[in-house]
Amino acid sequence: MDRRLHQVFHPASVAVTGASPFKSGQLFLDSILASGYHGKVYAINSRGEEISGMQAYRSVADLPGPVDYLICCLPAQAVPQLIRDCATKQVKVVSIFTAGFAESGTQEGGRLEAEVAALARQTGVRVIGPNCLGAYCPASGLSFTADFPRETGKVSYACQSGGNSVYVTRAAAYRGVRFSKVLSYGNACDINECELLEYFAQDKETEIVALYIEGVCDGQRFFKALRELCEQKPVVVLKGGYTASGAETAASHTGALAGSDSVFDQLLHQTGAIRVYSLEELVDMLVALDKLPDLDGNRVGIFGGGGGASVLATDDWAGAGFVLPPLPGPARDKLRGMVSTEAGLILRNPLDLSSFAYSEGFYGLIKDLLTLDDFVDFSVIHIGFGQAAWFSTSVFDSEINLFRDAVARLQGQVNTPLIMVMQYLISGWDWNKGIEELQRGLAEAGVPVFYTMSSAAKTMARLLRFCERRRLRREEADIQA
Amino acid sequence: MDRRLHQVFHPASVAVTGASPFKSGQLFLDSILASGYHGKVYAINSRGEEISGMQAYRSVADLPGPVDYLICCLPAQAVPQLIRDCATKQVKVVSIFTAGFAESGTQEGGRLEAEVAALARQTGVRVIGPNCLGAYCPASGLSFTADFPRETGKVSYACQSGGNSVYVTRAAAYRGVRFSKVLSYGNACDINECELLEYFAQDKETEIVALYIEGVCDGQRFFKALRELCEQKPVVVLKGGYTASGAETAASHTGALAGSDSVFDQLLHQTGAIRVYSLEELVDMLVALDKLPDLDGNRVGIFGGGGGASVLATDDWAGAGFVLPPLPGPARDKLRGMVSTEAGLILRNPLDLSSFAYSEGFYGLIKDLLTLDDFVDFSVIHIGFGQAAWFSTSVFDSEINLFRDAVARLQGQVNTPLIMVMQYLISGWDWNKGIEELQRGLAEAGVPVFYTMSSAAKTMARLLRFCERRRLRREEADIQA
Repeated sequence: MDRRLHQVFHPASVAVTGASPFKSGQLFLDSILASGYHGKVYAINSRGEEISGMQAYRSVADLPGPVDYLICCLPAQAVPQLIRDCATKQVKVVSIFTAGFAESGTQEGGRLEAEVAALARQTGVRVIGPNCLGAYCPASGLSFTADFPRETGKVSYACQSGGNSVYVTRAAAYRGVRFSKVLSYGNACDINECELLEYFAQDKETEIVALYIEGVCDGQRFFKALRELCEQKPVVVLKGGYTASGAETAASHTGALAGSDSVFDQLLHQTGAIRVYSLEELVDMLVALDKLPDLDGNRVGIFGGGGGASVLATDDWAGAGFVLPPLPGPARDKLRGMVSTEAGLILRNPLDLSSFAYSEGFYGLIKDLLTLDDFVDFSVIHIGFGQAAWFSTSVFDSEINLFRDAVARLQGQVNTPLIMVMQYLISGWDWNKGIEELQRGLAEAGVPVFYTMSSAAKTMARLLRFCERRRLRREEADIQA
Repeated sequence: MDRRLHQVFHPASVAVTGASPFKSGQLFLDSILASGYHGKVYAINSRGEEISGMQAYRSVADLPGPVDYLICCLPAQAVPQLIRDCATKQVKVVSIFTAGFAESGTQEGGRLEAEVAALARQTGVRVIGPNCLGAYCPASGLSFTADFPRETGKVSYACQSGGNSVYVTRAAAYRGVRFSKVLSYGNACDINECELLEYFAQDKETEIVALYIEGVCDGQRFFKALRELCEQKPVVVLKGGYTASGAETAASHTGALAGSDSVFDQLLHQTGAIRVYSLEELVDMLVALDKLPDLDGNRVGIFGGGGGASVLATDDWAGAGFVLPPLPGPARDKLRGMVSTEAGLILRNPLDLSSFAYSEGFYGLIKDLLTLDDFVDFSVIHIGFGQAAWFSTSVFDSEINLFRDAVARLQGQVNTPLIMVMQYLISGWDWNKGIEELQRGLAEAGVPVFYTMSSAAKTMARLLRFCERRRLRREEADIQA
């Protein structure tokens, strides 16, 4: 295993250069200080002035001890000399936040980036970027934001865009996903997506891989690395610049050459990677992979929505290729005895039990359905907060914990997977806070939560195709063995 | 004009029967009391007991004055006699919340609904439902929830599902859309979608129409009414039960016969109605129709996202059929002088100015671009809160009003339409409250806000097709005249 990529995520000491008050350097420094980083931290600025309560050094040479990982916020022109200084100091990894390199489209930017890449090769200093945020690794307390979780997890994520690395990590974290390693790697002048895929394949802490790319440095190596990785672990790929116009924007962003999307799509399909088309879809897919076991089939049971919501839910799931089996006869008879006919309840699948969706009886019933019969392959609990005509904040607050506990308990009692669709209504209501707490509670209990029926159905269809393909591949391998 | 449909929305007096404590009847009663209803309100329950501070009457016959609109929460078996009592009392409209009619699939339910329908024809009492929530009309203060806005607006909405009428009205209202009339009409045993479309065509207060249907009572009349309505006003249609499985669920929900979707789609296309496929898409479309003037073309300018966000935004808009023209040369030169190259900014279209997206200079620049040049047909301001690595709650709170005011002012200064994409990150952050306030402020200023790039692009593509078709139709009409 490449020790130097290991050090990208597990440095024993970190320095930030360009750490001046109110500049990006201070933001990087503060993020590390707030994230519980385990090693030694140094600040560097040209005047040697105090920053965030630390005495800064004037240069890399002045640092009193060894540095594994250095974050660079200096202007682009100063970067080549910095790499030389880092080589002298035996710094192992330099993460370059600075932009204005190849992505600028200027001759000077291109020349500078080539110089940095050549220096990396010559000196052995590994370079992340330029034009990136660098590494987040909760196991070592390294982070480029102050609000990412401190707990480690199963997902590793290589991302060519800084903003997209932040969005996905944050949004997935809020839904209960935890990360092993995230690398925002920008222009990829040294460490690139190929090396990262090879590393994630070997890394025992990485069980699921996410990738946001705009271009590929070496197509052959990329597809070989991706194919080998996909044989071991699920990989989700979001490719920015898949339209002709998008490819032009990508060239301005990271200097990436996007290439033909139909060729890319074909090759991607051959590897077995799961392709998505937006940040929201990427997050949904990570939630499903992180929280759910293998899906065995396409039969879905839907519980709890209102009448019109059930009709639309049926369209969403049937449209995505799923089958909604009818309720088993005995369950239906039992139900008839339980419900009043005051509101128009649909005693089929979807099971519209909106009038007592939050009661113990409801969950007892679902449990019976899901444990006694071979009824479905997985289930959806649907809560449409925006559809309720009458809503008492006080009742809601008292019921929300009961509800969370009931769903979490149900998940432990049934032997088929369970997902939740919380059709979140973005609004200024008082009870939005309660819904956020409910989601957080469910995420902590390991329940995968989605925000719309159609995004849940799309994600589960992708998961099912992935599981079917993996099962087939394993069966073929068994036959050959 | 049909006076009786007018009275559905503008009754001089309202009564609720079945208004017993903690039952649906009380919820209807409380909603009316909370909504500023202008006329006289009566409560009826069998014991004549006090309810919500009002003395209830024991029967319709006992009411001391005339009643225009009566809400029925009695059991299904009691409904036929209620209609007879209402006829004697000269009640004009009865809205039946009670379910357990044709949608139950039972012989008794079907028989009861047929009896109610026959009584409506014989007595002249108009019936809404059964299995519905009835009417919301802010101009008269009539409502079936306590939290819908009291201000009137341009949109009228006929909806076969109660929950879906609540969701759409509430979600659109939060984004600044106001309604003239909403009718949740359920099983449609008397007042049906055809009559409503005919009424909305005549109604001067209705400028935009939304329709959620699961089935159609009379296909020929429906398409004739819809075609005539579409010649005058934009109409958005969401059809529940468009898959075969969905159609089965719809039959259980409102007893609707869904029919072939490909035939329906063809006929719908001929009318010029705008078809959508989910509640979220319906709300997005209403926001666009309510807030935006005619779109003249497919050239879009995108401002303010980060680098990776700009790449994905380009894919979303180009993929939906839009063109992103290059920035005019003079604007680009001016920009080069304004920005630092520290962060990798994309000085093209999309214009990635994330590092000073909230400054006055940014908006001055966009204003110059949009007023001095014939650059684009409309613009998108993109704010990706979830993409920001570093975020200071105190700075955010102080900047949020500046930002809202700058966007609102910009909208008044430029002569092409402006939309906003607020890539809302659902999370438990402190500053979520600030984002909600920002959205509310923008909605109040008349700015259309969308939550994802892809939903915005899809909605604007539908709006553009609608505008192009309408323009063509008007030109043809001019030639013929």
